[in-house]
Amino acid sequence: MEINGVKIAAEFAEAFDMTATRIIVTADSAQWVKIAATTMTGFATSVIACGVEAGIERYFLPTETPDGRHGAAILLFGFSRDSLVEPVRNRVSQCVLTCPGTACFAGVTADGIKGSAIPLGRSLRYFGDGFQTAKRLLMSPPERQSGAAIERRFWRIPVMDGEFLCEDMLGHVSAIGGGNFLILGQSRRQALLAAEAAIVAMRKIPEVIMPFPGGVVRSGSKVGSRYPALMASTNQAYCPTLVGIAETSLVEGTAAVYEIVIDGLNFAAIAEATRVGIIAACHAPEGGILAISAGNYGGNLGRHHFKLHEILADAGGVK
Amino acid sequence: MEINGVKIAAEFAEAFDMTATRIIVTADSAQWVKIAATTMTGFATSVIACGVEAGIERYFLPTETPDGRHGAAILLFGFSRDSLVEPVRNRVSQCVLTCPGTACFAGVTADGIKGSAIPLGRSLRYFGDGFQTAKRLLMSPPERQSGAAIERRFWRIPVMDGEFLCEDMLGHVSAIGGGNFLILGQSRRQALLAAEAAIVAMRKIPEVIMPFPGGVVRSGSKVGSRYPALMASTNQAYCPTLVGIAETSLVEGTAAVYEIVIDGLNFAAIAEATRVGIIAACHAPEGGILAISAGNYGGNLGRHHFKLHEILADAGGVK
Amino acid sequence: MEINGVKIAAEFAEAFDMTATRIIVTADSAQWVKIAATTMTGFATSVIACGVEAGIERYFLPTETPDGRHGAAILLFGFSRDSLVEPVRNRVSQCVLTCPGTACFAGVTADGIKGSAIPLGRSLRYFGDGFQTAKRLLMSPPERQSGAAIERRFWRIPVMDGEFLCEDMLGHVSAIGGGNFLILGQSRRQALLAAEAAIVAMRKIPEVIMPFPGGVVRSGSKVGSRYPALMASTNQAYCPTLVGIAETSLVEGTAAVYEIVIDGLNFAAIAEATRVGIIAACHAPEGGILAISAGNYGGNLGRHHFKLHEILADAGGVK
Amino acid sequence: MEINGVKIAAEFAEAFDMTATRIIVTADSAQWVKIAATTMTGFATSVIACGVEAGIERYFLPTETPDGRHGAAILLFGFSRDSLVEPVRNRVSQCVLTCPGTACFAGVTADGIKGSAIPLGRSLRYFGDGFQTAKRLLMSPPERQSGAAIERRFWRIPVMDGEFLCEDMLGHVSAIGGGNFLILGQSRRQALLAAEAAIVAMRKIPEVIMPFPGGVVRSGSKVGSRYPALMASTNQAYCPTLVGIAETSLVEGTAAVYEIVIDGLNFAAIAEATRVGIIAACHAPEGGILAISAGNYGGNLGRHHFKLHEILADAGGVK
Repeated sequence: MEINGVKIAAEFAEAFDMTATRIIVTADSAQWVKIAATTMTGFATSVIACGVEAGIERYFLPTETPDGRHGAAILLFGFSRDSLVEPVRNRVSQCVLTCPGTACFAGVTADGIKGSAIPLGRSLRYFGDGFQTAKRLLMSPPERQSGAAIERRFWRIPVMDGEFLCEDMLGHVSAIGGGNFLILGQSRRQALLAAEAAIVAMRKIPEVIMPFPGGVVRSGSKVGSRYPALMASTNQAYCPTLVGIAETSLVEGTAAVYEIVIDGLNFAAIAEATRVGIIAACHAPEGGILAISAGNYGGNLGRHHFKLHEILADAGGVK
Repeated sequence: MEINGVKIAAEFAEAFDMTATRIIVTADSAQWVKIAATTMTGFATSVIACGVEAGIERYFLPTETPDGRHGAAILLFGFSRDSLVEPVRNRVSQCVLTCPGTACFAGVTADGIKGSAIPLGRSLRYFGDGFQTAKRLLMSPPERQSGAAIERRFWRIPVMDGEFLCEDMLGHVSAIGGGNFLILGQSRRQALLAAEAAIVAMRKIPEVIMPFPGGVVRSGSKVGSRYPALMASTNQAYCPTLVGIAETSLVEGTAAVYEIVIDGLNFAAIAEATRVGIIAACHAPEGGILAISAGNYGGNLGRHHFKLHEILADAGGVK
Repeated sequence: MEINGVKIAAEFAEAFDMTATRIIVTADSAQWVKIAATTMTGFATSVIACGVEAGIERYFLPTETPDGRHGAAILLFGFSRDSLVEPVRNRVSQCVLTCPGTACFAGVTADGIKGSAIPLGRSLRYFGDGFQTAKRLLMSPPERQSGAAIERRFWRIPVMDGEFLCEDMLGHVSAIGGGNFLILGQSRRQALLAAEAAIVAMRKIPEVIMPFPGGVVRSGSKVGSRYPALMASTNQAYCPTLVGIAETSLVEGTAAVYEIVIDGLNFAAIAEATRVGIIAACHAPEGGILAISAGNYGGNLGRHHFKLHEILADAGGVK
Repeated sequence: MEINGVKIAAEFAEAFDMTATRIIVTADSAQWVKIAATTMTGFATSVIACGVEAGIERYFLPTETPDGRHGAAILLFGFSRDSLVEPVRNRVSQCVLTCPGTACFAGVTADGIKGSAIPLGRSLRYFGDGFQTAKRLLMSPPERQSGAAIERRFWRIPVMDGEFLCEDMLGHVSAIGGGNFLILGQSRRQALLAAEAAIVAMRKIPEVIMPFPGGVVRSGSKVGSRYPALMASTNQAYCPTLVGIAETSLVEGTAAVYEIVIDGLNFAAIAEATRVGIIAACHAPEGGILAISAGNYGGNLGRHHFKLHEILADAGGVK
């Protein structure tokens, strides 16, 4: 398969079961929403070293948020519901509770999962040192801006600029981590321009994040290492400087490869992000893309397989 | 003391001994330098919950960096040299090693402290899975752009867009954490505008960072809590909504307070950042600032005391 | 109040809400049960630094365990259900899964709390690398040795000496941490002999553990410290060497104080352990006990108050 | 090669560079030394999940310790000097500082490595909340009981039974982790009796510990797993229940395998422990041992190779 002259490998991305939650952060201005969201999702590229993978899903206009202010939706992914508890608490307490004017709402309903909901305000309220108060509000459920109002529980925690309003509990949903595709370019500049174009397009897709810096990874890794203390190491087969030294998976003339990693709430969202990202990369401003491929482990590890040819079958301009 | 009609309390900020290191990150463009630096310094507001306090000290033009590319200086602060090792390794491995086109240089010399330098490339090289190579380069010492060249040791770690060049070891220096001042405003909007003005001015001062989101804290805390599991809790004396409920330290009419926390490499740098920040806050665009104060613990805990009146004695327009 | 000539202060222990779980470990011999249980509950004196407080509640004869082998009941305490997940998984995977001949059963039913049960075998099974198998067994519920059998779910994980049989999920229950009393002695030797006598008596009480080394603490602490990075520090009022330097709470002639800290599944169990412990201490082999007291924070922090005079009201020999 | 009819495979154990330190704990009685040492070295079987590998090297008579009391030598192993800092501090603060009557001495000199010594009393002193005092003592160096006295620095931290005396800094030395051998038995009982015999013999060898529960491992693992989140998983080739399902490395008739893992301060100590352990296992009380082997990764990962045939060449009764 080719798109705009770029070869699409007959490969698939192999992705894994994860668990996700969503937090809606609001503030007095779009600027401070961005500051809170960026600070809270920093150092969150990999579950293993950062505790969680997190990113900004989208920004909201004041008409779209529960308190009529600017807002952002943050998605956080972990290996399980339990593994989300501490990162969620620490990141909100350090980067949102501290941040001028913010409030925090659940973005996934905790209704119907009482026992297993993720404590948010319920943990943070102790910062109030006894001066916090509980509050019940009738409002739309977390996932909707309309429909029958339900009762939701919040904490009002006194801070120096007023009160931090924070929802008691967060829901969580099953999710998928590790969707990906690879961009092989004949120069580093061209490969990076293509990756940037892909990310611009992918950020419009709801229910996904690209957790790496700027959405792009240049340190593709394989599972395992020659050193037992490390569980991942460079994937030499994709390193241009190692052609001739190690076995390579690169097509002739490749000077640089970038990977886009995608975490999402469901298969369809990741597939759509993959689709628009690849199409954008294949039409990158300066061209020079030799091939698009994807990373997998042979198919036996992750139960979610994103087959590039299937995902792109209905893409315009494909032959 | 008053500045532009704003009362300056006869208070001092009480600050503590810390240890700091500096990393110079370079990349192919200013845009990617900012992405790497922002990602790496996210979720780094407090040593206790984040492992480290970190921020961007300044950006460099290509003429100012060791490899002639755009760059940024990142400062990282911990309670001791030892407490910096793991955060430095994890943050660089997850947010710089992964990021397109980056390289990493020491910003503090490790010369003369062999035994206690902080491993950087020395740890990360293992990612190369045996394909990494060591490299010695003759170049200026970390803190200077000129002067006699010295031999510095680097690792070249193969990645998908070429090689990640990373200095072997980082130096570290004694530093000071917890410089601060408080802005008391008669409305939240005015207090926040003053805090923003302060931060803009303070970011021009070298050797300091303001580690909180956007540089500003709204959740001022006291040591201790009614709950033994918490070591800090809201400082009720500075919460406007608790006036009348708890004893207050607020001047009449205060509607919001913001704190600026400053970590720095030495006393003079923090004092200068405090000075320019307060002056900017006192001339905030919409006024409304009632007083400037500072936080301390009575003076017995931290051995660094930033007395506002002394620091501001030579400020223009002070009476 | 006095017992055997020892003054009992009109004080109370102030204790806190915790969450607990119980694991039943069995092995081929009493010796290996003790090795597994001791290894697993080592370094578990304090939630904050060790992640969990854990101890051996009791040992079982082969007639008392689900698989007819020797066994032990381990109690683990955390601040919440969520905080138990990782310590439980790590301690069982490192100290029981690894240990010759062991198996692991829930000691608290997960029935009826599906969503919030604590994963045990469900996490550890992955060690089986695909060779593990699930197994359902009809047996008595975790808390009983008789009654209607229920279906319980286990994992069989292949290891070098056969299979590690491990229950899928653990239940958890609300619990209380921080019950305590203080033994003031006129010599260190006498105070320690009294503490040892107390521990021997208290270990016979079900549903409690004394989590410190040998059950005894000599480093009584207060909340807070002169150093902000520390949340607890020595309680100078109980340090004999500081009499005359700091304000003291010691009775004249005190040379040493030991504290017994008690975590338990309910108020009655902790009260009973306190009762038998104090009576044993007051009859210590070499005497020399000046007073028994208890530690609290004024009564506003923990909602469980163990009033020594009430608890001991029905003790033999009290006047 | 055979010993007492037991086949010794022509295999080698492959071991890795580590860093180690030694702490001498003393107390008022042998009983309390054992309690402190056992509590402190619990949950310390694997660096990755426990933070450190630790064990009791030996016990001391009062004539052998710096303060003339009973004592124990604890060895702690990590991947680097830096990785030892936090586990050493946490384990001593929770399990020794808290324990009746204990004191803590360096067991490896910090002389000559000023910059990189490991802080012990230097960290723990803060518990004294300002009441601690420094003390310099003239005494033999840590590794010797005789020879020219040197000045060593201690902290006296007030606690409820007097003072906790704790050396300021610990030295550290390069070390080796992962020495091992495997005992293949025709029944689980016989294999375990052989492992127990081996451990009894090996505990007499200085400068080594066997960090697993009771010194024995039954969950032999391989590097990597089918699940990317796991870095180790069961070694199916050594699982008797998987013979016929997965490829096996077991000799015909093997019903159970136990592994002894050895961490040591140098090659010679591990080699000697291996030698006496294997000889003891080959003469186990009920026999039934089919073979002795060892675990390696092909020889390219760890640079220390313990070749069984070489180590046993001079063993009595070998043919």
